[in-house]
Amino acid sequence: MADYQAPLRDIRFVLNEVFDTPALWASLPKLAENVDPDTADAILEEAGKITSGVIAPLNREGDEQGCKWNDGEVTTPEGFKEAYQTIVEGGWNGLGGNPDFGGMGMPKTLVAQFEEMLQASNMAFGLAPMLTAGACLALDAHGSEELKAKYLPNMYSGVWSGAMDLTEPHAGTDLGIIRTKADPNDDGSYNVTGTKIFITWGEHDMAENIIHLVLAKLPDAPKGPKGISLFLVPKFLVNEDGSLGERNSLACGSIEKKMGIKGSATCVMNFDGAKGWLVGEPNKGLAAMFTMMNYERLGVGIQGMGAAEASLQSAREYALERLQSRAPTGIQEPEKAADPLIVHPDVRRMLLTMKGYIEGGRAFSTYVAQWLDISKYADDEERRVHAEQMVALLTPVAKAFLTDRGLDVCVIGQQVFGGHGFIREWGQEQLVRDVRITQIYEGTNGIQALDLMGRKVVLNQGRFFELFAEDVAEFIETNQSDAAVRPYLEPLAAALERLADVTEYVIKAAAENPNEVGAASVDYLDLFGLTALAYMWARIVKAAAPKAEGDTSGFYSGKLKTARFYYNRMLPKTVSLAEGIRSGSDAMMDLTADEF
Amino acid sequence: MADYQAPLRDIRFVLNEVFDTPALWASLPKLAENVDPDTADAILEEAGKITSGVIAPLNREGDEQGCKWNDGEVTTPEGFKEAYQTIVEGGWNGLGGNPDFGGMGMPKTLVAQFEEMLQASNMAFGLAPMLTAGACLALDAHGSEELKAKYLPNMYSGVWSGAMDLTEPHAGTDLGIIRTKADPNDDGSYNVTGTKIFITWGEHDMAENIIHLVLAKLPDAPKGPKGISLFLVPKFLVNEDGSLGERNSLACGSIEKKMGIKGSATCVMNFDGAKGWLVGEPNKGLAAMFTMMNYERLGVGIQGMGAAEASLQSAREYALERLQSRAPTGIQEPEKAADPLIVHPDVRRMLLTMKGYIEGGRAFSTYVAQWLDISKYADDEERRVHAEQMVALLTPVAKAFLTDRGLDVCVIGQQVFGGHGFIREWGQEQLVRDVRITQIYEGTNGIQALDLMGRKVVLNQGRFFELFAEDVAEFIETNQSDAAVRPYLEPLAAALERLADVTEYVIKAAAENPNEVGAASVDYLDLFGLTALAYMWARIVKAAAPKAEGDTSGFYSGKLKTARFYYNRMLPKTVSLAEGIRSGSDAMMDLTADEF
Repeated sequence: MADYQAPLRDIRFVLNEVFDTPALWASLPKLAENVDPDTADAILEEAGKITSGVIAPLNREGDEQGCKWNDGEVTTPEGFKEAYQTIVEGGWNGLGGNPDFGGMGMPKTLVAQFEEMLQASNMAFGLAPMLTAGACLALDAHGSEELKAKYLPNMYSGVWSGAMDLTEPHAGTDLGIIRTKADPNDDGSYNVTGTKIFITWGEHDMAENIIHLVLAKLPDAPKGPKGISLFLVPKFLVNEDGSLGERNSLACGSIEKKMGIKGSATCVMNFDGAKGWLVGEPNKGLAAMFTMMNYERLGVGIQGMGAAEASLQSAREYALERLQSRAPTGIQEPEKAADPLIVHPDVRRMLLTMKGYIEGGRAFSTYVAQWLDISKYADDEERRVHAEQMVALLTPVAKAFLTDRGLDVCVIGQQVFGGHGFIREWGQEQLVRDVRITQIYEGTNGIQALDLMGRKVVLNQGRFFELFAEDVAEFIETNQSDAAVRPYLEPLAAALERLADVTEYVIKAAAENPNEVGAASVDYLDLFGLTALAYMWARIVKAAAPKAEGDTSGFYSGKLKTARFYYNRMLPKTVSLAEGIRSGSDAMMDLTADEF
Repeated sequence: MADYQAPLRDIRFVLNEVFDTPALWASLPKLAENVDPDTADAILEEAGKITSGVIAPLNREGDEQGCKWNDGEVTTPEGFKEAYQTIVEGGWNGLGGNPDFGGMGMPKTLVAQFEEMLQASNMAFGLAPMLTAGACLALDAHGSEELKAKYLPNMYSGVWSGAMDLTEPHAGTDLGIIRTKADPNDDGSYNVTGTKIFITWGEHDMAENIIHLVLAKLPDAPKGPKGISLFLVPKFLVNEDGSLGERNSLACGSIEKKMGIKGSATCVMNFDGAKGWLVGEPNKGLAAMFTMMNYERLGVGIQGMGAAEASLQSAREYALERLQSRAPTGIQEPEKAADPLIVHPDVRRMLLTMKGYIEGGRAFSTYVAQWLDISKYADDEERRVHAEQMVALLTPVAKAFLTDRGLDVCVIGQQVFGGHGFIREWGQEQLVRDVRITQIYEGTNGIQALDLMGRKVVLNQGRFFELFAEDVAEFIETNQSDAAVRPYLEPLAAALERLADVTEYVIKAAAENPNEVGAASVDYLDLFGLTALAYMWARIVKAAAPKAEGDTSGFYSGKLKTARFYYNRMLPKTVSLAEGIRSGSDAMMDLTADEF
């Protein structure tokens, strides 16, 4: 099993060559205060060191040992506590956080790269900083100044961690029917009572306090999603002077036995009149949650690709070293008993498919992160709104497409190993088990697809989609004279047109029949993702081509050849997806329950 | 978690309605002696009882406990021994075995249905009878009369089990480079020495003896695959009177920790001058192995679909019961907090995709089993050769396509459960972990695709493919006047033509460049499988349509509607696959190692 090595060369290529991210940062005055290219590069370097050197080595053992529950306490696998201290010492939780409360104020374009390395090195562990950063985001965006001052600094530092408490046994996707309630006290606080499940890192021994952000209903709340409020409920109450007070009445009832991410604790959390404080407006808890969702959902997409990158690293090494059978064109290494796997076309197909998704996916998540940075930091409102709409459109694609492909890639990376891929010691099977959750949590991929198709496309009659289409079209237009990129522009334009046609088709069909949205959604998201990655690969070609000639490392020419493979073998899937969508919803809806 | 229930209604539909298997049996005199429709149906009924009632309940606990290794001994999970006794008492190992040595002589078309139920109920356990039956097949086909008389009766009964010992640490796909050697003794026996890995049920406590069929090299053997011989090496030597003698010098060195099928023991087997006997001709061991491979490989394909069926049963139940969100067209069950999942188009898409593969796959494996029965039992040589060629062509498709779709289906079945699908107690995640091995063992699916594309298609210039194409074309021709089937005939013909065109393309391209075979192979196999299942769905429509009208159970109309879904949403994938294949091998081969 290859040890994970942070792919800094590839990350720098995307940040500085495919995109000119430093120029973007410089164009956003509020960001320019916090970040410059040298600082950013030093952060990448350090992130590479701790993820490859400190966190990755705990990944296998974390899976073997798992978290242990005993009478409400959760013990983490060996080494996790120490690794978490490394996170605290580096202030990594607060990398993108608000500098007014101790965050570092780094752009999402940079934070996204750290997230990839963190999640690739050890997904179970990486969820702790990820959830904390997510909780900070929600608190920073919606909490009162008092709450922020009291909680954010210790959360950014990581001395306290964060958890998001949404799901209940009967309410997952459908948060409108949650039962957890919050009764007001005279002092402005609330007593929160109810049971939450699937709470990632809801309890553990790595931080001094755990700050839960809990969805609950006020006594007079309206039914459904418009009657949900968000509460901050700490494990230990915090005194006026910031020191820890008494234990709050909440407890971890048990942790789940699950398929993967076993090093993390997935908790049942029981709130028994636990003291909490309202975050944001009453009954607007779901909206508050959703402001951080765009950040988190992109982060989950990146998780999918992180696991995929780890799988690729091992598979590539194995394909170069494992000797098995002879090349179809004749013996390549006569002095050995067999040729290395890499001589076989189908093994190359597997590695190239992995690369096509991972490297295209890395560019895509950085592209989405750019829009997030603009939406957060641009002075110009028009520019900000434009970016917000792009973010709204692209976020479900990033979450679902990159995690669906994350599973695909990890399964391929396991297949490269043959029987050894099924055995635990090689690590490839753990990546499959771990990455599988990314398709499920933070809104299942089916829900992402409904969000994309329904709210982000049909609801605004394709207006957001037009913004994306214009961006791609502009790239096609301005690069007609680039000889390296030109061969890709026609198939890219065709893919864009196919996507646009299907978009128009679904908008029309949905006006007649609301079931058309759900009938098209998952295939539409795939079609969108494949097209978006084709756009990314064209941009990669543009960046790599001028440098390929003098380069003997194979780095740039490898990019050009992977682009070709992507267009030849992977992009054609869009044709079938479009055809399937156009067959409409009748074939799905026209069955009684008995007929299933 | 739904308990697995053998889908006898669906199995009988395929055996007696989609195909007229009893008529086939009657047409094969050697088979007609052994089986009649009543006997067959009683066997199905009993198979349903023991798999649903005895074997399925052990599945979850088997996964939790796993097999335990201690100083060469393997202890099986609780209940496995008793369940194995049920297999022994029913003689299930010998269901398809040679009646001359105690087998029941049942047709593969019937045995395949038992295999589906067995593997669906508990794959880890099911591997024990499966491997034994496979070893019996090889022994029956190639062993001397003496070996057969001495070993087969106890193996058919299951008092002794069988294992297949092929893989070595450095030699998986590439068996030509194995190092295990066999030195002849004066008494006609051999001393076998070497290490084998990944030996399923190589050691355990359920049977009195374990009969290993071991690939090894004779001292003077030529290099490569033509220097491999097959040996029978029992765990306990067998005395002249059939009683057990001394322990042979072979031992299980350890068992693997693996992703799934944890209830089964995957053994490292050390042979230290163990006494063995040659099976078949010297240096023809690989050929001997391959005669049983067609049976086994179909069995692995069936395994994939078995796990898929188990996943579907749970997913369907969950979709009907779990209340979450409201239907897009408005509230369906106002008295409840939410509507059942089944109202959502995307949930229906998931269930229908599962059904499309499973029910089409069941028909396809029965179709292949028919050719196996003909190839084994037909008196007429021309008919037998025709069937053998069909079997050769279709076997890799059955193995790889049905297991690849087996994983897809189990992943979908897990997704229906949302977060609960990731938790062990619901059972859906175990099916994903278990089914994953079917894509790897018995020849990885990449190897199946090479076998199909290289040996079964290109090598004979598409001659076997023509036989399949003629069969489909004949169906299209003879059903033009069937109003129910007619809508499917044109898209089926188009799919067949697409497959035929690609076949011709690859044959031509491979004549110029041997890499074209491996570059096309996996996509070609998918294209073939999707087309073959389209043919099956057309045959299902033909069988179901006349009975749909008067039927209030939804069974037949459900088949018709699933067929429509398959043609609308699943078959279109063939378009993209064909396009990808036609882009050729250059995009794969034109990279140096550095460029990956």
